[in-house]
Amino acid sequence: MATGKTTWTIPEGYIPEGSNGPEPEMLSHESVCILNTSDEDASIEITVYFTDRGPVGPFEKTIPAERTKHLRFNEFEEPEEIPTGTPFASVIESDVPVVCQHTRLDSRQAENALLSTIAYPSDS
Amino acid sequence: MATGKTTWTIPEGYIPEGSNGPEPEMLSHESVCILNTSDEDASIEITVYFTDRGPVGPFEKTIPAERTKHLRFNEFEEPEEIPTGTPFASVIESDVPVVCQHTRLDSRQAENALLSTIAYPSDS
Amino acid sequence: MATGKTTWTIPEGYIPEGSNGPEPEMLSHESVCILNTSDEDASIEITVYFTDRGPVGPFEKTIPAERTKHLRFNEFEEPEEIPTGTPFASVIESDVPVVCQHTRLDSRQAENALLSTIAYPSDS
Amino acid sequence: MATGKTTWTIPEGYIPEGSNGPEPEMLSHESVCILNTSDEDASIEITVYFTDRGPVGPFEKTIPAERTKHLRFNEFEEPEEIPTGTPFASVIESDVPVVCQHTRLDSRQAENALLSTIAYPSDS
Repeated sequence: MATGKTTWTIPEGYIPEGSNGPEPEMLSHESVCILNTSDEDASIEITVYFTDRGPVGPFEKTIPAERTKHLRFNEFEEPEEIPTGTPFASVIESDVPVVCQHTRLDSRQAENALLSTIAYPSDS
Repeated sequence: MATGKTTWTIPEGYIPEGSNGPEPEMLSHESVCILNTSDEDASIEITVYFTDRGPVGPFEKTIPAERTKHLRFNEFEEPEEIPTGTPFASVIESDVPVVCQHTRLDSRQAENALLSTIAYPSDS
Repeated sequence: MATGKTTWTIPEGYIPEGSNGPEPEMLSHESVCILNTSDEDASIEITVYFTDRGPVGPFEKTIPAERTKHLRFNEFEEPEEIPTGTPFASVIESDVPVVCQHTRLDSRQAENALLSTIAYPSDS
Repeated sequence: MATGKTTWTIPEGYIPEGSNGPEPEMLSHESVCILNTSDEDASIEITVYFTDRGPVGPFEKTIPAERTKHLRFNEFEEPEEIPTGTPFASVIESDVPVVCQHTRLDSRQAENALLSTIAYPSDS
């Protein structure tokens, strides 16, 4: 069983600047959770879009067969780091069907806030 | 009338460690709300995926005809408990069409935070 | 232009017991926002499902042509009030296509929390 | 690659009255994030619907090729400003496929709350 699609889009992206509370669990973060239910490893390419410059990427990730990874945009390093406090968007492409969900934990103020949504699915 | 699909996916899963406020309503929890509008009971099988080990399940549940259940992953016991503070993902399969929504209440800090999204639907 | 579907499902439903802050804007509430972009009034029937008893409804509402209403489940009265602190689910049926979104404001603790998701669409 | 649809609907809309924290990042806001992955600029027309009067618009925006914009309804000026503390809804139409996500940051109380969902997609 391989559930999902090969292209996912998240128009909202923002890494809050600053955090309150113990790290890493209460560190402000912007993440994409990816589930690969197939029996093949998924090669993932993430392209990041900005407001005032061209897209950056691909950021390359692997989600092993029958595994999930909750990737934090904060921790992306190659080809470059994603700046904090800056609006962005992302497109996730996979060579096998996967399912993607977008989640933010914002702990800039004393009490954390959360948002989440299933990303927008399509097939390339 | 039976609205919905037979397979639902939730890539984001995380049971916060710790809570503030009176239980059970303010206990941190990760839940899937399932609605069965059909006139037959729904036999549900939930498979849970992790980052660094193979999937666990099925967790077996029943949603009676024309009823809803708001299941808390915190309370899953068979075949095993789901660890807190650990990223996971889940696939919900039903023998009749149902609709699933993912909700978290995080009360690790003094003021609670909420997230929710309709799960990703497909047919097996 | 009439965008949308005629049947919408919200598996998650819960009216928090208690609130903090000035009413009505900070009163804890569970709501469904409905947009009718068509040029005909929409006759809406909402059925509410529970965990341990049969469904209740229809709750009858009208969304005029080219108007939106943000309905609070707290304020439903006919055929009966919806109890607070109790899990429920809902199905919204319309005679013309509409779009539905589910939102909760939870102000049980000093600082409010929010959740929202587009409801699950289907056609009857 | 151009991912997305040409019509998007957001039934929930509300600009909270009042804010806490430093502006602009902690100013209460209601936003739609739009991603245009195509190689053509997207001409966007947003129509805003209300409860007790006819729709207003179009609000005209441009999302350049391969760019994202996170538009705040608070900042809309032409053909008129959108009132705070008032329920509304919106339909976003584009001449090329785009993807839209709805996000609110509510800082009326001392600690901010967040909600987000992918908007409802259709093709005109």
